[in-house]
Amino acid sequence: MTQAASDTDVTVCEVGLRDGLQMLDALFPTDQKLAWIRAEAEAGVREIEVTSFVPPKLVPQFVDAQQVVEGALAIDGLTVLGLVPNLKGAERGIALGVHKLNFVMSVSRTHNQKNVRREREDSVADFARIADLVRSQPDGGRPQLLGGLSTALGCSYEGRIPVEDVVRYAVALAEAGADEIMIADTVGYADPISVRTAFKAVMAEVGSLPVSAHFHDTRGLGLANVAAALDCGVRRFDASLAGLGGCQFAPGATGNIVMDDLCFMLDAMGMRTGVDLQKLVAVREIVARNLPGTALYGGLARAGLPTRYQPAAERARMPA
Amino acid sequence: MTQAASDTDVTVCEVGLRDGLQMLDALFPTDQKLAWIRAEAEAGVREIEVTSFVPPKLVPQFVDAQQVVEGALAIDGLTVLGLVPNLKGAERGIALGVHKLNFVMSVSRTHNQKNVRREREDSVADFARIADLVRSQPDGGRPQLLGGLSTALGCSYEGRIPVEDVVRYAVALAEAGADEIMIADTVGYADPISVRTAFKAVMAEVGSLPVSAHFHDTRGLGLANVAAALDCGVRRFDASLAGLGGCQFAPGATGNIVMDDLCFMLDAMGMRTGVDLQKLVAVREIVARNLPGTALYGGLARAGLPTRYQPAAERARMPA
Repeated sequence: MTQAASDTDVTVCEVGLRDGLQMLDALFPTDQKLAWIRAEAEAGVREIEVTSFVPPKLVPQFVDAQQVVEGALAIDGLTVLGLVPNLKGAERGIALGVHKLNFVMSVSRTHNQKNVRREREDSVADFARIADLVRSQPDGGRPQLLGGLSTALGCSYEGRIPVEDVVRYAVALAEAGADEIMIADTVGYADPISVRTAFKAVMAEVGSLPVSAHFHDTRGLGLANVAAALDCGVRRFDASLAGLGGCQFAPGATGNIVMDDLCFMLDAMGMRTGVDLQKLVAVREIVARNLPGTALYGGLARAGLPTRYQPAAERARMPA
Repeated sequence: MTQAASDTDVTVCEVGLRDGLQMLDALFPTDQKLAWIRAEAEAGVREIEVTSFVPPKLVPQFVDAQQVVEGALAIDGLTVLGLVPNLKGAERGIALGVHKLNFVMSVSRTHNQKNVRREREDSVADFARIADLVRSQPDGGRPQLLGGLSTALGCSYEGRIPVEDVVRYAVALAEAGADEIMIADTVGYADPISVRTAFKAVMAEVGSLPVSAHFHDTRGLGLANVAAALDCGVRRFDASLAGLGGCQFAPGATGNIVMDDLCFMLDAMGMRTGVDLQKLVAVREIVARNLPGTALYGGLARAGLPTRYQPAAERARMPA
């Protein structure tokens, strides 16, 4: 039985296997993906987005989606996520039995057109069809459905994005049947003020639906944005081990926020992630040996834990 | 005439020439230090700590303190700072006419003993003598006196530092005559929660005295800590261009927070630093060519400004 959620419980979701690998030409071997997933689950990470159900012709990296999902589903206690770009992807994900489908559309009209070649309203309609499909599943086989809004805090084509647009599409996905809304700063435009503005506006309109955050560390502001989102009440964050990933629209940019530094910050702040920081840092070795020459980021891995550092879980057990 | 300070005015102080260079064996040529100072002042940075008045025998990097200070004082509008470890250093700084003396002691007893070989109470007494000396200067030649507390948020020897100790020594320096208190996270222990706790406690006890912040980015939390300090009302921050610096107690650790990313975050948040971000990033070239092989950090330099980015100063001029 899982512990009751409290205000200090935070869920971190590893997205390096999807967001981190999708840009790479080199195929990450399937058995090594599974080694990574197993090691990170063993370190205490409870949610991992293991693949994307895009057509393998478009992104060969995910040709092994079935084996990776099957391997991940065998891990006790792990919530397995897959990205679904459309209804067909959702059908594949449901057939394989993933626990959470991560649908993503762009709030930026231009970015949505470049990325999925359709208007935003068509993406919402597509999401509604996916939600119907999810609802039609028998109780035991019904996955959670995450409605993700990318470029919500800025776009390489359009610049700043109006908060009204973020709210509009968050509400549209919520009404269509999302179990959770994810606000994504896809290209690293956000700052703590814009994060507070956007998240507060969305959270005021989607009722009790959980709102989670996906930040990139393009200009070094990723963890500052996490702290701002935490203040708003966000308790679920995407990140990738060693900050793997990049952005095709920002050469030289780093990718997602660094999972290891995120977990350290949360733990230092007294939040409970369930992650063992030493074990988590050790998982970087699997990434490093499979991606020679790829830049790995992270302060915790470089500097180690502070002297006499006491993890949040231990501090909580200490007498005051 | 300078603009009246408002809640959105933030002062950034470059400390790379002192904190960034003090660990390096290679001497940074004096004319190149001055080129760096001039270029960064030209980019809009209004305070630069240009040297340390430690005995040159201890840190050869600062043997050119006099020439560097004299060159920096010739730059119009620049506030020139020098670190003073003791009364003798203060005498040198005053004789050269620096605008601000930066005295630093450690809140950690062990660190203070290792660093300056004395008890903390003796450091406070030393500071009081420096304050007396400063007060005895004629009006035109009286520098500002900054009372700095290093290892205030954690120590490589002692771990976490009690907030009561930070408050005690902040009050002691304030009562002895500090014009400003600086709280420093010397070895990168701070997190947004510990920052809020320490700064709020100190600010509640030192009355109207300004309290500024000096953060290191050892484990990637530097800018998150800046945002937390901003929330407390802190409006002056140390940083070093390209995150130069390190820490002898944390091999492989990065140094101070990255000046370029700090200025970008502040600007994105609508704060006014007076810094031209493009010009600031260009100054990195001077550091890079003089320190080949030294790791330079920073997301803004890597990714560039966001598409259609409007600096805070321009946004303020736009019709709503």
